[in-house]
Amino acid sequence: MTTTERTDGRAANELRPVTITRNWLDHAEGSVLVEFGGTRVLVAASVTEGVPRWRKGSGLGWVTAEYAMLPRATHTRSSRESVKGRIGGRTHEISRLIGRSLRACIDLGALGENMIEIDCDVLQADGGTRTAAITGAYVALADAVSWLRERGALASEPALTGSVAAVSVGIIDGQPRLDLPYEEDVRAETDMNVVATGDGNLVEVQGTAEGAPFSRTELDALLDLALAGCAELTAIQRAALEA
Amino acid sequence: MTTTERTDGRAANELRPVTITRNWLDHAEGSVLVEFGGTRVLVAASVTEGVPRWRKGSGLGWVTAEYAMLPRATHTRSSRESVKGRIGGRTHEISRLIGRSLRACIDLGALGENMIEIDCDVLQADGGTRTAAITGAYVALADAVSWLRERGALASEPALTGSVAAVSVGIIDGQPRLDLPYEEDVRAETDMNVVATGDGNLVEVQGTAEGAPFSRTELDALLDLALAGCAELTAIQRAALEA
Amino acid sequence: MTTTERTDGRAANELRPVTITRNWLDHAEGSVLVEFGGTRVLVAASVTEGVPRWRKGSGLGWVTAEYAMLPRATHTRSSRESVKGRIGGRTHEISRLIGRSLRACIDLGALGENMIEIDCDVLQADGGTRTAAITGAYVALADAVSWLRERGALASEPALTGSVAAVSVGIIDGQPRLDLPYEEDVRAETDMNVVATGDGNLVEVQGTAEGAPFSRTELDALLDLALAGCAELTAIQRAALEA
Amino acid sequence: MTTTERTDGRAANELRPVTITRNWLDHAEGSVLVEFGGTRVLVAASVTEGVPRWRKGSGLGWVTAEYAMLPRATHTRSSRESVKGRIGGRTHEISRLIGRSLRACIDLGALGENMIEIDCDVLQADGGTRTAAITGAYVALADAVSWLRERGALASEPALTGSVAAVSVGIIDGQPRLDLPYEEDVRAETDMNVVATGDGNLVEVQGTAEGAPFSRTELDALLDLALAGCAELTAIQRAALEA
Amino acid sequence: MTTTERTDGRAANELRPVTITRNWLDHAEGSVLVEFGGTRVLVAASVTEGVPRWRKGSGLGWVTAEYAMLPRATHTRSSRESVKGRIGGRTHEISRLIGRSLRACIDLGALGENMIEIDCDVLQADGGTRTAAITGAYVALADAVSWLRERGALASEPALTGSVAAVSVGIIDGQPRLDLPYEEDVRAETDMNVVATGDGNLVEVQGTAEGAPFSRTELDALLDLALAGCAELTAIQRAALEA
Amino acid sequence: MTTTERTDGRAANELRPVTITRNWLDHAEGSVLVEFGGTRVLVAASVTEGVPRWRKGSGLGWVTAEYAMLPRATHTRSSRESVKGRIGGRTHEISRLIGRSLRACIDLGALGENMIEIDCDVLQADGGTRTAAITGAYVALADAVSWLRERGALASEPALTGSVAAVSVGIIDGQPRLDLPYEEDVRAETDMNVVATGDGNLVEVQGTAEGAPFSRTELDALLDLALAGCAELTAIQRAALEA
Repeated sequence: MTTTERTDGRAANELRPVTITRNWLDHAEGSVLVEFGGTRVLVAASVTEGVPRWRKGSGLGWVTAEYAMLPRATHTRSSRESVKGRIGGRTHEISRLIGRSLRACIDLGALGENMIEIDCDVLQADGGTRTAAITGAYVALADAVSWLRERGALASEPALTGSVAAVSVGIIDGQPRLDLPYEEDVRAETDMNVVATGDGNLVEVQGTAEGAPFSRTELDALLDLALAGCAELTAIQRAALEA
Repeated sequence: MTTTERTDGRAANELRPVTITRNWLDHAEGSVLVEFGGTRVLVAASVTEGVPRWRKGSGLGWVTAEYAMLPRATHTRSSRESVKGRIGGRTHEISRLIGRSLRACIDLGALGENMIEIDCDVLQADGGTRTAAITGAYVALADAVSWLRERGALASEPALTGSVAAVSVGIIDGQPRLDLPYEEDVRAETDMNVVATGDGNLVEVQGTAEGAPFSRTELDALLDLALAGCAELTAIQRAALEA
Repeated sequence: MTTTERTDGRAANELRPVTITRNWLDHAEGSVLVEFGGTRVLVAASVTEGVPRWRKGSGLGWVTAEYAMLPRATHTRSSRESVKGRIGGRTHEISRLIGRSLRACIDLGALGENMIEIDCDVLQADGGTRTAAITGAYVALADAVSWLRERGALASEPALTGSVAAVSVGIIDGQPRLDLPYEEDVRAETDMNVVATGDGNLVEVQGTAEGAPFSRTELDALLDLALAGCAELTAIQRAALEA
Repeated sequence: MTTTERTDGRAANELRPVTITRNWLDHAEGSVLVEFGGTRVLVAASVTEGVPRWRKGSGLGWVTAEYAMLPRATHTRSSRESVKGRIGGRTHEISRLIGRSLRACIDLGALGENMIEIDCDVLQADGGTRTAAITGAYVALADAVSWLRERGALASEPALTGSVAAVSVGIIDGQPRLDLPYEEDVRAETDMNVVATGDGNLVEVQGTAEGAPFSRTELDALLDLALAGCAELTAIQRAALEA
Repeated sequence: MTTTERTDGRAANELRPVTITRNWLDHAEGSVLVEFGGTRVLVAASVTEGVPRWRKGSGLGWVTAEYAMLPRATHTRSSRESVKGRIGGRTHEISRLIGRSLRACIDLGALGENMIEIDCDVLQADGGTRTAAITGAYVALADAVSWLRERGALASEPALTGSVAAVSVGIIDGQPRLDLPYEEDVRAETDMNVVATGDGNLVEVQGTAEGAPFSRTELDALLDLALAGCAELTAIQRAALEA
Repeated sequence: MTTTERTDGRAANELRPVTITRNWLDHAEGSVLVEFGGTRVLVAASVTEGVPRWRKGSGLGWVTAEYAMLPRATHTRSSRESVKGRIGGRTHEISRLIGRSLRACIDLGALGENMIEIDCDVLQADGGTRTAAITGAYVALADAVSWLRERGALASEPALTGSVAAVSVGIIDGQPRLDLPYEEDVRAETDMNVVATGDGNLVEVQGTAEGAPFSRTELDALLDLALAGCAELTAIQRAALEA
């Protein structure tokens, strides 16, 4: 890694301060306020015993997610999607990504016919909202699974087959960097979100050339950074769950 | 007031613990996390210099509000209005109430051609979300007005002609009570929301018989309770703004 | 009451001419054309034997209401909500108010598992459309209940536990006035809608400061006017039902 | 024509009682309550001086129409299109038909840059609602044109180039019949709506085989009936306008 | 017929080149690419064994149709109805017309409790898209019925009681013409779509005066042209089905 | 690469037969029917001289894309998004991907203030619809740029800075394979879409673990396959453009 200056003084391979506050809500079966620097996401995991009609009798559970941003999470206010009467493409895309990522670490058979709905609401956005959401959502999911376990409602064990965490990486001024704040995100030539398991395998890799196309070598450097970042996040998740 | 027991041990004329945390967000011109017991509402006041086209050249500003609840603010999860593609009647009704209440304490001519949009998002609901929202929104509005004042963007002074606060009251088991939590709200025979100014006049009175109709005498008892409660909230608002 | 002149020559505590024409439609189980001066509302009560699925087996019936305005009910044409694809906040709010008001005078257990849907369509608007709608809707509801009674479809008696009527009041030029036409409504400093039972208790009180906040004394004067107006409307309803 | 009995005792070539009441509304520039037997349609013609932006400077006016039914116009209640959030195909189709029919009798250049919007709201439906709407709408349109004429707002004369009226015809039990009530409409093998000018030319012919296809001969018989019916309606319109 | 020149050199009573390509899709039970000159419509007939719930146990099948245009089917691009979130009136109207036309040639009892959905997607539009769609849809429907027949899934025979074909006719420069391309369609004074059975009876007649009203004589000339055109199309359909 | 059998007999690193038919539509400035085996996508590029208001005066052009599927493109019919009134998440996601990919090979400054809208409509789907769409869309885009060039409407040259092509890869039964048909797509453990430039750099990499997470080694093998596939597609595009 180089010594190019980042505005917040971090090294290129350094995460922002990350905090995960469990049980932020009184009623949700799992809930977390997750912060990646100035990005704050409130995650609630809601358990419904039973599954939607189309899944009844399958013996399988279901995990789904919805992502949204409060209107003034950002520098300038955006209109509410409820008022516009439509969910935008970006919202849809991120909700689907979070859902897929969480389903990668749960055994839906072991979950039994239960449904877990994960709501990720961005209270403040400063880059990396989707990766903060996934990282926090794993912890809320784990708490929701514990809630089911305590009630003897799981079909078998282990319901969680591992953990998932996510981080953004990008190339700014030619330099690969970890965990981009908004200010770097808008300047990135290439932008990548990586979701990885606690044991270092890949769940999602989404890389996009914002400006010039990127080379295979650059892709490799970004993956290195991201996997190291995810390993750190895994440790933070573990610490939060053991607290 | 009688000595009938409330679940949380309060006297019939006692507010729940109320806290108002200013500047909860980094970017909004005014922002507040307001808590009435377990009810938590995040309020953001967003200033746009200039007004919508239909108001241009009028010399008048505009203040508007939107209210919403996160899906898991409540005991069981509700569907998102953005996903349903429609805003429900209750949401509409409360958004309009908040907007009207705030416009009662601002001189739109003094505000000049500026717009302030107030977003009230309920992070957790335990009764009285609309009254907590109004009470907190006044503080966020005052901060947004200060922001304009510091930039010399007000047309004249005073822009704020007073303050507003709001509280719910209701009759439970025949007893008039102040500031109902969810548990009392669902049991109330009569339910009333009162918005009052800092000098004790009325802005909105909305009383509803949930079960049997109520007498003029009961109405009077509820108004007494509510006006006293609003006076206490006014003092809490003032303290928060002076902090 | 003072002697200040009203444009239509009424005393401050005088209703406009009110007429209630029953059976205006051939097929509805109850129907009324109600007129408060130039305000004309067509009310239809539709009975469905049976209740929605979520209420089946409860032994309880249901009463609901929908309010709407024809596009040219007003001085200038408004767009249709069906064309806009959304129901506005005002429409929602009034529909909910009418429904709640009518449920205050019916015993849903005595109604048995039957549903009554009340449609209030404003053919011409000249102020007080929601209060005219409630006043007329009570009569249409009574006819729909009679229709069920004649078929032996009520679970017990009395299904109607009383009557409801509604009227608007407001302060214009400092003077409290009863039953505001459009022209007074737009000039009112304070505007209040009151729904009362036939025996003089309160079902809904909705008072709003349109300009300056109002004092407790002003509130009392408005309530006096409104309760007297509702008593007159109750007599007119009774006469219509006996005709 | 044969002697087969119609439920209401009419001859096969006889219209139902038709009444056209002008100025049913106080504010609309033209308004009519039109009745074809039990079918009652309230028509309002709203004039806006000026045209939509896309038509400005063309020197041409515009006439458009919207058709809708109140929920309880029919034997059993239908849901409101505003509540469903969508306009159905039938509503769209009829609105377009009414608009086209009216534009056939007006010279948009003579109308000048003015817009006339025609709202046809069915208060009660007993067959032939679209043809009653067109027949009444012509009269409301004529009144709206007079309103413009009185203000000197027409670009030239004559703005109305003729009149239009409409009627339904159909084959029931093998017999061609004029002006079908609901009961005949549902039983018709072939159903046709004809819009004709006051001088006996055709504006719209919409014939549909509901059951078996129909022959060219049957089509001719239906057209004979319809043109005779339209001639009678033209006389009724003229009488209404001269009243 | 006169000798007035048409841009494409056709006689007034001549069809454009018509081709019907069966089995254009691999999976649909019936599918056709139908071309009327530059107009190209892809028709797919989808069979579902079983009917919607509301029709179960009736012994009757159902045939329905949906019509749509690709955004760049036309000279200039139109917005997608899916993006606008609403289906336009024209789309609704044509979908309903196609469905009714096809149901005129099928015995829903013989079809048994099976559903056939016909999708008509206009890939390129050069006038007469609805009539090309109907003409092609009959062939796709016939293939879908054969598919059911081969599986022994028809309730009785014949399921198809005849064939339907459709063509547009219009008056251009005073001359009645058959099968209008876009360029003639926009200039037509009168425009008519006729759907006829293979044995020369009428299913739908929809004639519209675009400019001046049309006489009974003109209507007769148009019907003559259209019925002759439909007879030709019937022969082309038969040839396609025998290929 | 191994010798495991693919249903269609291809080698693991072999593309399906790919054809690109230019000028499939008469009016679009660029249009292509692209086929990857059974997958057929109709692509239309529509040029508008000028840009949306928010971009005026910037000197920059704009390229955007919309993706959709005909209802019967798939094995069983899906509902139309226009009828549902909402665009699904998958549609949104793919439309955005196509737009971003195309913007990676065009210089928006050289394009000048012109807009190119790319419509990708899937006529038949057999896996890889988004990658076929991108590959075909590049050719349609190139034709649209030529259309502008011929009119002297480009601001500078070269407007196209390279080419883009896309292909799907996945791991089936442990084996990395190129260009998955539907049947392999549903069985893939890992699924990746890669968009690359003609000179072998990366524009988008979207890899998803459908079952178990994938290792860095597997990612590498998939990238090798995909880049080789894109090189072949680049040659096919070039040949099509030279034809």
